[in-house]
Amino acid sequence: MIDLYALTSPNVQKIFLLLEELELPYNVKLVDVWKGEQFLPEFIKLNPNAKIPVIVDHEGPGGKPYTVFESGAIMLYLAEKTGRLMPKDMAARYEAIQWLMIQMTGVGPTFGNLTHFKRFAPAGNDYSVSRYQTEARRLYDLLETRLGASPWLGGQEYSIVDLATFPWTRNHDAHGVSWSDHPHLARWFGAISERAGVKRALAKVDAIVSSRDTAAADDLDRIFGRGRYARA
Amino acid sequence: MIDLYALTSPNVQKIFLLLEELELPYNVKLVDVWKGEQFLPEFIKLNPNAKIPVIVDHEGPGGKPYTVFESGAIMLYLAEKTGRLMPKDMAARYEAIQWLMIQMTGVGPTFGNLTHFKRFAPAGNDYSVSRYQTEARRLYDLLETRLGASPWLGGQEYSIVDLATFPWTRNHDAHGVSWSDHPHLARWFGAISERAGVKRALAKVDAIVSSRDTAAADDLDRIFGRGRYARA
Repeated sequence: MIDLYALTSPNVQKIFLLLEELELPYNVKLVDVWKGEQFLPEFIKLNPNAKIPVIVDHEGPGGKPYTVFESGAIMLYLAEKTGRLMPKDMAARYEAIQWLMIQMTGVGPTFGNLTHFKRFAPAGNDYSVSRYQTEARRLYDLLETRLGASPWLGGQEYSIVDLATFPWTRNHDAHGVSWSDHPHLARWFGAISERAGVKRALAKVDAIVSSRDTAAADDLDRIFGRGRYARA
Repeated sequence: MIDLYALTSPNVQKIFLLLEELELPYNVKLVDVWKGEQFLPEFIKLNPNAKIPVIVDHEGPGGKPYTVFESGAIMLYLAEKTGRLMPKDMAARYEAIQWLMIQMTGVGPTFGNLTHFKRFAPAGNDYSVSRYQTEARRLYDLLETRLGASPWLGGQEYSIVDLATFPWTRNHDAHGVSWSDHPHLARWFGAISERAGVKRALAKVDAIVSSRDTAAADDLDRIFGRGRYARA
């Protein structure tokens, strides 16, 4: 069994997507980052960097519980553990790792900063909005070019690279980017959206969003059984 | 033989450090990013993301030339190829990968943005300077805490995680952070600085900086033999 410490951010969505695709059993432990629950001492013991997602794999290496933080590390770990969603061949595997790093170092930080400056920063930060908007557009164009040359972002196979990047592109409208002039991204996004595991994962994320919106915390207990992290 | 496409940025320094520690033979091919050489068509063929570092390993998987971009991917690739500077055991290896990801997703983007807003952005971006300054200080404190609990950033062994993070901390003074109140970072930084391979790597980086400063491009040809990338 795996415990997933989660809420609804793109980095958390990656792990919902991966666990559902792999059909691994897991418990969700919600960490309400808007209330600062990631800074609670019990959570800092799991991840000193005070961020979700985190997993605890109760059947880790050597059969012992094993904690993994950083979404990219979690994805590589679960792919290696299960032997799925990453190529085995070294050349193909490192092609995928390169594009995973583009998500981790480029897409994630840039789109995250863009959202911050568009939605949360005070007025008057036009320079910063423009900086991250320009870089976000460049990265969407890079992904479009990649998907014009390769069926999937990591190469010939559907992999964790697609699952790592997909959640960040769900807000492409808010990022000022349209699929109408990104046909390869549109094809890729549509194909992923149709997968059964992806639908299950997004339904869980949507349930968390809805329950938070209605402040119906009891619903979360009902949906996820094990209750909220802070009360666990 | 490995070709290293490089200039002097922290992400490039990582690969100089790693190649010197591993004592692998390599050619340096300079890409003057200040002149936009990373956008030349021949370079885009190597890395569609138009960034250095890039390596071409002429003895890649299956004995064929193999191109790797993204510094984190290059480090993982060379560690796996040589069987060095990463733990073999899965639990220890993923502990190191988690901290490598903290460098790739946190330290690198944050310190890079801090430098941009402090040195290159127009006046009036105080909010952004403060945002990245605050996050940089938090990350230095995170590294300090880690090094108080572990001899090296990746765990019990000196690894690519230390070499990935070290170049980003060389400008700690400019980042407004002193080693005098970060004793574990001071110990770690000093130990790495004293290593022979690290000294060789930094001497090469310094030579590039000096030659650029004096516009003595011929010196670079003399030092690196194969000449500048754009003329190669």
